[in-house]
Amino acid sequence: MKKSTIKDVAREANVSIATVSRILNNTGKGYSDKTRQHVMQTIERMGYFPNAIARGLINNESGTIGVLFPAVSGMVSAELLHGIEAAAQAFDKSVIVCNTLSDPDKTEHYLQLLYEKQVEGVIFANARLTSDFQKMVKQMAVPFVTLAGTSEIEGIPEVKVNDQQASYDATQYLIKHGHSQLAMVSGPSHDLIAGTPRIEGFKQALADANLPCKATQISWSHAFNFEDGKHAFRLIMAHHPETTAIFAASDEMAAGVISEAHAQGIRVPDDLSIIGYDNTKLAMMTVPALTTVSQEFDTMGNRAAELLCHSIMGEDIESLSLKHKIVERESVNKQ
Amino acid sequence: MKKSTIKDVAREANVSIATVSRILNNTGKGYSDKTRQHVMQTIERMGYFPNAIARGLINNESGTIGVLFPAVSGMVSAELLHGIEAAAQAFDKSVIVCNTLSDPDKTEHYLQLLYEKQVEGVIFANARLTSDFQKMVKQMAVPFVTLAGTSEIEGIPEVKVNDQQASYDATQYLIKHGHSQLAMVSGPSHDLIAGTPRIEGFKQALADANLPCKATQISWSHAFNFEDGKHAFRLIMAHHPETTAIFAASDEMAAGVISEAHAQGIRVPDDLSIIGYDNTKLAMMTVPALTTVSQEFDTMGNRAAELLCHSIMGEDIESLSLKHKIVERESVNKQ
Repeated sequence: MKKSTIKDVAREANVSIATVSRILNNTGKGYSDKTRQHVMQTIERMGYFPNAIARGLINNESGTIGVLFPAVSGMVSAELLHGIEAAAQAFDKSVIVCNTLSDPDKTEHYLQLLYEKQVEGVIFANARLTSDFQKMVKQMAVPFVTLAGTSEIEGIPEVKVNDQQASYDATQYLIKHGHSQLAMVSGPSHDLIAGTPRIEGFKQALADANLPCKATQISWSHAFNFEDGKHAFRLIMAHHPETTAIFAASDEMAAGVISEAHAQGIRVPDDLSIIGYDNTKLAMMTVPALTTVSQEFDTMGNRAAELLCHSIMGEDIESLSLKHKIVERESVNKQ
Repeated sequence: MKKSTIKDVAREANVSIATVSRILNNTGKGYSDKTRQHVMQTIERMGYFPNAIARGLINNESGTIGVLFPAVSGMVSAELLHGIEAAAQAFDKSVIVCNTLSDPDKTEHYLQLLYEKQVEGVIFANARLTSDFQKMVKQMAVPFVTLAGTSEIEGIPEVKVNDQQASYDATQYLIKHGHSQLAMVSGPSHDLIAGTPRIEGFKQALADANLPCKATQISWSHAFNFEDGKHAFRLIMAHHPETTAIFAASDEMAAGVISEAHAQGIRVPDDLSIIGYDNTKLAMMTVPALTTVSQEFDTMGNRAAELLCHSIMGEDIESLSLKHKIVERESVNKQ
């Protein structure tokens, strides 16, 4: 079965294409009620479903929100998306997801696509909405919310945890449990979301406890992956074999530290304590299970979608800082 | 800035809405070349971008393919999607993703949405396309491909590995390395994708090696998750403490077995060998790293999107069975 086009509908209903267009565009002029009814029935019979499109052309209500994700850990995206879906459903919105692979060209392309698909709002997740997109965002003229990310563009609310405070608390947790030889396995130092603020939190906690912090106590990586964690931990042990506790800037990196420690015959948590960051599903899968900073991605996704839907309805919305907490499992030795 | 509508364009260009509609719908009648040029310039100046929509209304070419995922392990989706994206880009197609949460109502809803968004084809991933959707699929009248799933609807090509053969090979791998006390940690027995065929493969390998297979040697679960793996392994050890090797129907379940074995003081692989299924990133993160059946999700996603794009171009396409392989790591004791 070939899909019906507007031409087929016009032919079948024995009216002009312009008349079908007028009816779809709800102009109210140029056709009788009877013609309208006849055309709508023809459309229904033929399985031509332009309603959402026509609605979008007329009043910008597509019933759809768009979500842009970079290529992050699948677990984080999955949990954020779960929360987004639940809130969107409550507001009777559909969600379409595009994957930018952290590529600015792809990001621009997908923003354009979401515009063409008439989304009513956009959640920009897990990335930095740079000023390069200012023109496009303005042109789209729909609400934006960043989720677990930041925005360089003024007036776009952010939903995230306070990364610096959360890192401070994670580091302080290690210190509180008797550790004074600390090191950090970090993501990229120039990453303004999960890099810089987490490093600053770590440094501040050491400073407040009057503990030294040499540059070599922080080992940064290209990303936040398992292999990055393994590599960063090897560097730390080369410089600081006295280390008894590690703060890792992601659960995946923490899993890398656990794996590498195992390979080097270092027992976790007996010889080495580790605290992670994210509380993805992975945190309960490691052996020993990982003590970590919980970001509650599901809730974050939920709140971001709620805010966006309120904004779509014309309400004023503001940035939201969500609470983090430390989820205690078995990877930290309490001295 | 309020987004421009067709009404705004008509007002700004000083023509009727019907004329703008005719031009967008490319009827070729009812307007001069000069008017067309004037309207298109107005549209461009106002940032009203109906091109993709108009194009879709006319000739069903939206440049977009849709992907439906259920709520599976985030890692599997992420890797499949990565492959899909790469192939789609090569064919100059955009990808929009919808998350069905394995809910038939949501699946129907999102198929409808993809139809309204004028996608040119659909990849139905990681699930069974049941005959309930026959009418909708027929109405959409665009190519479908199932990916790591199956279709009850005739004529829809499938891209997947041979699950039964892969499970046979995994089980035979354990037997080949000296194990004769085997058990299987399975997903739902009624799951026709990853349940039944994998159980059949396990049984056949035991039969061919003249090994007994009691019902209690196979422990099935509600899903394929970490907790399911832990629970199923506890049941197996209650019935068969003599077990020396486990075939788990997913990497997440295998991670659950490793975690539970650790909790029970059973050493992996010294006391217990484990082989998983999927070769997600998790497989390299467990301690010890997991020997597993690789499904090469990236390649699968890539081939599925390629097939779909060929089908969109009018070519005949057929189901594709991709090769699996066993990736050897450290979780199987080679006796």
